[in-house]
Amino acid sequence: MTSKSGIHEKNLEKIFYPDSVAIIGANKVRGTVPHDILDNILKADFNGIVFPVSPKEKFIAGIKAYKYVLDIEDPVDLAILVFPASVCHMALEQCGQKGIKSAIIISAGFKEVGGEGVERENQIKAIADKYGLSFIGPNCLGVINTDPQSRINASFARKMPEEGSIAFLSQSGALCTAVLDYAQAKHIGFSKFISFGNKADISEIDLLYYLKDDPKTKVILMYLEEVSNGNALMKAARDVIAGSGKPILILKSGRTSEGASAAASHTGSLAGSDEICAAAFRQAGIIRCSDIEEMFNIAIAFAYQPPPNTNNIAIITNAGGPGVLATDAAIHDGLKLATFADKTTAILKKNLPRTANINNPVDVIGDARADRYNIALSAAFDDPAVEAVFVILTPQSMTEIDLIAREVAKVSSHYDKPVYASFMGEADVQEGIEVLQRNKIPHYPLPEDMCKAVATVYKFHQEKHDAGDNIASFDDVRIDNARAILEHAAAQNEPFLTEDTALKVFAAYGLPVMESYLATNQEEAVQFAEKSSYPVVMKVMSQDIIHKYDLGGVALDLKSATEVEAAYNTMMNNIRTRQPDANIKGVLVRKMIPKGQEVILGVKRDPSFNSVLMFGLGGIFVEVFRDVSFRIAPVSEREACAMIDETKSSALLKGARGQAIRDIPAVVEAIQRLSQLACDCPQIKELDINPLIVLEEGRGCFVADAKIMINHTVKSS
Amino acid sequence: MTSKSGIHEKNLEKIFYPDSVAIIGANKVRGTVPHDILDNILKADFNGIVFPVSPKEKFIAGIKAYKYVLDIEDPVDLAILVFPASVCHMALEQCGQKGIKSAIIISAGFKEVGGEGVERENQIKAIADKYGLSFIGPNCLGVINTDPQSRINASFARKMPEEGSIAFLSQSGALCTAVLDYAQAKHIGFSKFISFGNKADISEIDLLYYLKDDPKTKVILMYLEEVSNGNALMKAARDVIAGSGKPILILKSGRTSEGASAAASHTGSLAGSDEICAAAFRQAGIIRCSDIEEMFNIAIAFAYQPPPNTNNIAIITNAGGPGVLATDAAIHDGLKLATFADKTTAILKKNLPRTANINNPVDVIGDARADRYNIALSAAFDDPAVEAVFVILTPQSMTEIDLIAREVAKVSSHYDKPVYASFMGEADVQEGIEVLQRNKIPHYPLPEDMCKAVATVYKFHQEKHDAGDNIASFDDVRIDNARAILEHAAAQNEPFLTEDTALKVFAAYGLPVMESYLATNQEEAVQFAEKSSYPVVMKVMSQDIIHKYDLGGVALDLKSATEVEAAYNTMMNNIRTRQPDANIKGVLVRKMIPKGQEVILGVKRDPSFNSVLMFGLGGIFVEVFRDVSFRIAPVSEREACAMIDETKSSALLKGARGQAIRDIPAVVEAIQRLSQLACDCPQIKELDINPLIVLEEGRGCFVADAKIMINHTVKSS
Repeated sequence: MTSKSGIHEKNLEKIFYPDSVAIIGANKVRGTVPHDILDNILKADFNGIVFPVSPKEKFIAGIKAYKYVLDIEDPVDLAILVFPASVCHMALEQCGQKGIKSAIIISAGFKEVGGEGVERENQIKAIADKYGLSFIGPNCLGVINTDPQSRINASFARKMPEEGSIAFLSQSGALCTAVLDYAQAKHIGFSKFISFGNKADISEIDLLYYLKDDPKTKVILMYLEEVSNGNALMKAARDVIAGSGKPILILKSGRTSEGASAAASHTGSLAGSDEICAAAFRQAGIIRCSDIEEMFNIAIAFAYQPPPNTNNIAIITNAGGPGVLATDAAIHDGLKLATFADKTTAILKKNLPRTANINNPVDVIGDARADRYNIALSAAFDDPAVEAVFVILTPQSMTEIDLIAREVAKVSSHYDKPVYASFMGEADVQEGIEVLQRNKIPHYPLPEDMCKAVATVYKFHQEKHDAGDNIASFDDVRIDNARAILEHAAAQNEPFLTEDTALKVFAAYGLPVMESYLATNQEEAVQFAEKSSYPVVMKVMSQDIIHKYDLGGVALDLKSATEVEAAYNTMMNNIRTRQPDANIKGVLVRKMIPKGQEVILGVKRDPSFNSVLMFGLGGIFVEVFRDVSFRIAPVSEREACAMIDETKSSALLKGARGQAIRDIPAVVEAIQRLSQLACDCPQIKELDINPLIVLEEGRGCFVADAKIMINHTVKSS
Repeated sequence: MTSKSGIHEKNLEKIFYPDSVAIIGANKVRGTVPHDILDNILKADFNGIVFPVSPKEKFIAGIKAYKYVLDIEDPVDLAILVFPASVCHMALEQCGQKGIKSAIIISAGFKEVGGEGVERENQIKAIADKYGLSFIGPNCLGVINTDPQSRINASFARKMPEEGSIAFLSQSGALCTAVLDYAQAKHIGFSKFISFGNKADISEIDLLYYLKDDPKTKVILMYLEEVSNGNALMKAARDVIAGSGKPILILKSGRTSEGASAAASHTGSLAGSDEICAAAFRQAGIIRCSDIEEMFNIAIAFAYQPPPNTNNIAIITNAGGPGVLATDAAIHDGLKLATFADKTTAILKKNLPRTANINNPVDVIGDARADRYNIALSAAFDDPAVEAVFVILTPQSMTEIDLIAREVAKVSSHYDKPVYASFMGEADVQEGIEVLQRNKIPHYPLPEDMCKAVATVYKFHQEKHDAGDNIASFDDVRIDNARAILEHAAAQNEPFLTEDTALKVFAAYGLPVMESYLATNQEEAVQFAEKSSYPVVMKVMSQDIIHKYDLGGVALDLKSATEVEAAYNTMMNNIRTRQPDANIKGVLVRKMIPKGQEVILGVKRDPSFNSVLMFGLGGIFVEVFRDVSFRIAPVSEREACAMIDETKSSALLKGARGQAIRDIPAVVEAIQRLSQLACDCPQIKELDINPLIVLEEGRGCFVADAKIMINHTVKSS
C-alpha cells in the first residue's frame, strides 16, 4: 500500500476537490443510498458538474443520466460507486477505462462479510492498481468537504456540516451519523469529514498525510477500530505533528477485546494489546480520547483558541460551588490559579460588591449582571500573570445569560489570550451557549470538562514533538553474527536459545555480558573458572530443560576449583536423576555478577506495532505492581530514559531510601541496543533479560539471565 | 446539634408539608428574591394558605399582607424569612412568640461573610433554641417539595421541577439553579429539592434522616463543600442505606484545597483530607461522584429501573462502532456480555438480515427500522441469561428514531428486567430521547456513561451495607492505664511518648508487644537480657533524641552478656559525644523479634472524621508507591481485612513470589485493637507503628518500633 502513497497524494486532491463527479448506480427512489447521495451533492450546492450513471433511468432529479460511465463525453474527476457489491468491479473497470483516477466506493458487502466478500475486495483492489486509481472504502458513508471551493457532500449522511477547521475520519460509518448530529447541534464545523470504511486502498495513513497539508484543517480527529500498520501510523502521526503542528486525536475501540495472549515470557504476559496501543500513541504524540464527547471537548479548544503558553488561569464565576468544582478540577489536571497583580485586585475591589470574591477564582456573586462580568473579564485579561480565562455561569434569577455571553465574546476579542466557558444548566442557558458557539468560544456543560480539555491542549504544546528520526544507530553491532545464530536456531526448529547462545546474540549487539564459557566437562569448567576469577556461577544448558533452577541445574557463588568440581558433579547427578533423557549441551561458566538492582528488559512482537520493548524493576515490582513501561522500537535516547522514569520503582535506581545510585546511563544504552536488535532481527519472537543487574554509578550493568524465543516463520528482510 | 435532632424530626415535616406559610419580608418588586418566592409558591399551586408579611404593603399579589407575623390570627406552620440579615433575628423572635416551629431563612449575610455575620448567625441559633424552632439556612435558595399533597416551591429558583423520586440537597444555592435547569431539560423529577446553605440549625445529617423515611424519595443526591461532622455523616449514611436501601450519592468539592498537612508521621503525611474523605464515603456506602452529570447519570439508573441482579447484559445496536465502544466500556466497568441461549440466537438468525450480528452485542445493522429493534429486544429480554438490556441507536438515514424509542418503552414494560438506552447524536435523536425520558427509561448521550452508571448501581446492590454497628469491642483492654499514661505525658508537655512508654499504652490495649525493660545502667540491661533470651536489641530512650539510629542510640542482634555490656558502653559514649545535653531516660532492652514481613499501622486525627487508621507494607511500598489504605475508626473485622486486601503489596503477606504466608489474622486483630485505642484516647494526636513485624501463620505479629504524638488540648470524654 505504501508504494501507492505517491499516487494517492495526487488522487486524493480529486476526491476532495473534483471538478466533475459521476454517481454510478444512482436512482430515483427517495430514502435509498443511491438517491440520497445525489440529493446531498445537489443540496450542498456542489461547485462542479454531477453526472448520474444509471442503467435504467434517462434522467434523475432533472439531470441527464448516462447508462455507463464510458458514455460521459466530458472528463470525470471522481466516481462514486453505489452499485451492489457484486457488480462494483465492472463499474470500477469502466472507471479505469475512462481514465478516472479517484473513487469513493460506498457499497457494502466486501471484506466485512467474509467469504466471497474478501475476494470481491481483492478484485477491486487489483483493478484500482491496474489503472493507478485510488479509492476510499468500500463499506463507508462517504466523504464531505465543506471548503466553498468544492463544497461536496459525497455521502449519504442526513446533513451537511458547517464549515470549520476540524477534520474527522472514521472507520465506522454509523458513528459518523451520530457525530454529525452531535456537531451540528453544537455548531461545530468540519474541514473534511471522511468515512473510510474497509480502507482497502486509501488508508488512514494516506489521509493523515493529505490532511497535514490541507490548509483548511487545524485539528485531526479519528475513530479507529483496528490499527493495521501501527508503525506507519506512528510515523505518519509524527510527520503530521512535527511538520504541521496539527494535533491528532484518536478514539480507539476494541480496548478489551483481546486479553494479553498466553505467553512464555514476562514481557508477553504483561503487554496487553491495549497497553501497547496506549504506549504507541503516547510515543507518537497522538492524544488518545476515551469517548466522542471528550474528543470534541479537546478539539474545539484546539480549533477555536490559541494555545495557553503557561498553565496560569483565571476563573470568573457567579456561583461559589461551581467555582470550587472548577478549581478542584484545574489543579487536579495540572493547571494553576494565577496570583493576581495588586492592580487587578484593586480594580476588582473597587468595582465589585463587598461580598464578591476578588481573588482567583473571582466570584462576581449570584446577582451579577453583564457589567460585573465585564469588569472581572477585563481585569483578568489585563493581568500579565493570567494566561487563559475560564468563565462560569449558572442561571440565577437576575443572570443576563445572553448579554454575558456577548460580553465574553466582546472582551476576549481584544486579547490574544484564550478564553473558555461553562454555562451550567441546559434550557435556560441555551441562548447564551449559542452566542458562545457562534463566536467560537469553546463551551463545556461542566467546568470539569473545560479544565480537562484545556489541560490537554496545554500539555500537547509543552511536549516536544519530533518526527521520530533521532534514533541512535550503534555501528559497532555485528548484525550478521546475530542473524546467523538466530537463523540457525530457526532452521534447527529450536523453540528458544539457551543462555550461552543468547549471550552471543547480545554480545553481537554490544549488550553488556560477562565473558562466559560453555564447558563440556569438569576440567574445562575449572580451567575457565581459574582463568576468569572467583566467584563464578554455573548453569546447565539444554533445550530440554526449561526450569533449570528447579532441577538443580544452577550453582552460584563458587569460590574455588574444589567448589567448581563439586558443583559440576552434583549438577550432573541432579540432571541424570531428575531428567535422565535431557540432551545436555554443556555447562555455562561465568564470573558472578556483583550485587546490584535487578531490572527486566523485554521484547515482544505485536501484530500492529511489531517490536514492543518493556522495562521494569525485577521481582515484586513487575509481578505484583505491574510497574512496567512500554515503547515501540526503535526508541531514541530520550524515550529510553522516559521508559525508566515512567516506572515508580525506578526511584530505587536513583537512590531512594538510602540505596546506592545505579548506573542509569548504562541501562539507557542497553535499552537502545536492545531496540536496534529487535528491529534488525525479526526471528526474535519474544525476549526476556531477567534480570539485568545494574551496578553503582559508572560501573555498568550486566545480563544475568536471558531467554530468546524463536519465530520460525520469518526471515530477515 | 444532635441534641436537637428529635425536635428537627417533627419540625422538618412542617417545612415540607406546611398547612400555612408566612413569607416574612415579602414585597411587590418583580425580580427581587422576596417577590419571587411568593410568586413561586403561588405559581406552583401550593396546597395550603400563604400569608405575606410586609412592614410596608397592605396586600401583595392580591393577597392580604400583615405588618408582623404576630398579626396573623390563624396558626402558621412555616415561616420563610427574606428580610435583610440585620433584622432577621427580630423577625425570628416574633416567629418564636407566635409558636412557629419551622422556618427557612433565605437571607444571606451571616457566617459566610465573617465578622458580625458570625454573631448574627449565633443570635438566630440562640433564638431558635429558645423556642424549639428548627430552621433551614441561612444563605440558601430555599426548599421545594413536589409532592401534590403539599406542592410547595419555597425558593427563588427560576422553575418548579417535575415530580420524581430523586431528592437533591445542596450546600451551594447557585449550583441549584444550574441543576434545576439541567434536570428540567432531561425530564428528571425530584421528590424534595433542598438548598441548605450555612446549615446553622438543620444540617445535611438531619435531612438524611428525614429523607430515609420519606416515601416519595428513592435516591438521595447531595452537593457538599464541607464535612462538618464526618462521623455523624457516616452514621447517618449507614442508617439510611441499611434501613431503607436508598442510595446516597455525594459530589464533594474542595478536593484539592488542602494539601496533606506537614506532619511528623508517615500516617500524617500520607493521609490527605481528600483521601480520607474518599475512604470514609466508601466505608459508609456513599457513592462519590466526580461531577453533576455523573451524579444524575447514576441517579436515574437507580430511580427509574430495578437494579440488575447479575452483571450479564445484552447490547442491541444499529451501529457497529458504538457497539464496540459500549462493549469496551462494559467490560472495563465490570459488566459482562451475556452468552445467549441457543433459542435466542435461533430467533435472531431467523428474523434479522444475514449481515446482522446475532451474537451479543447484537447489531441490527444501519438500515434497521423499529421492527428489527422489536425482534432483538424481545429475544434479549426473553433470554434467561440476560439480566439487563442496553439499547444503542445512531441516527442513520432510515432509522425510525421516535418509533424505536416507543418500541423500547413498550417491550421493556412487559419485563421486570432493567433497560437503558443511548441514542447518540443530538438534534436528530431528540424526539426519541424525549420518548425515553417520559417513559422513565434512563438515557445517556454516550454508551460509556450508560455502562458506568449501570455498573455503579450493580456494585451498590452487590455490596453489603450494614449500619456500622458490628464493631468488635475488646473487653480485656485497660483503658484507664492507657489514659493515665497519655494524660501524664500531656501534663508534662511531652510532645511524644518514648518507645518504652508507648509500648505500655499498646500493652494496655492488647497490641502485641514483646516484654521489655527500661534499664538505667549496664547491669540492669545485662540482667534483663539474661532473664529474657538472646538475641536482644537495645535503644536509648530520651525525649530529646528524635533520630536515635543516627546518633548510634540503637544496637541490634546482641547475642551475649558481653555484647550487651559493650553495646551499652558504646551507646552511652555515642550519645555523650554527639548530643551531650540529652536527658536520657534509660535504655530499652527487649528480645529481638524474628525476621518477618514489616507493615505499618498508623493513626491520624482529621478535623472532619476524627480517628483515621492507616495500613501499608513498610519501606518502598509506602514511600515510593504510596500503597496504603485508610479507614475511619472504629472498624469492624471485615473492614480491617479490607484495609489489608486493598493494598497491592499485601500479596506479600499472602505468599506471593514464594514468600511465607504471614499471620494475617493477627494483623486484623491489631488493627481492630488500634481502632479501639484511637477512639478511646483523644490524647493521641498521631501514631505510627513502624514496623509491625508479621511472622508466619499462627506465630503472630509484634510491634518493633512505635511513636505516639501527644495532643495537649483534649481530655478524655
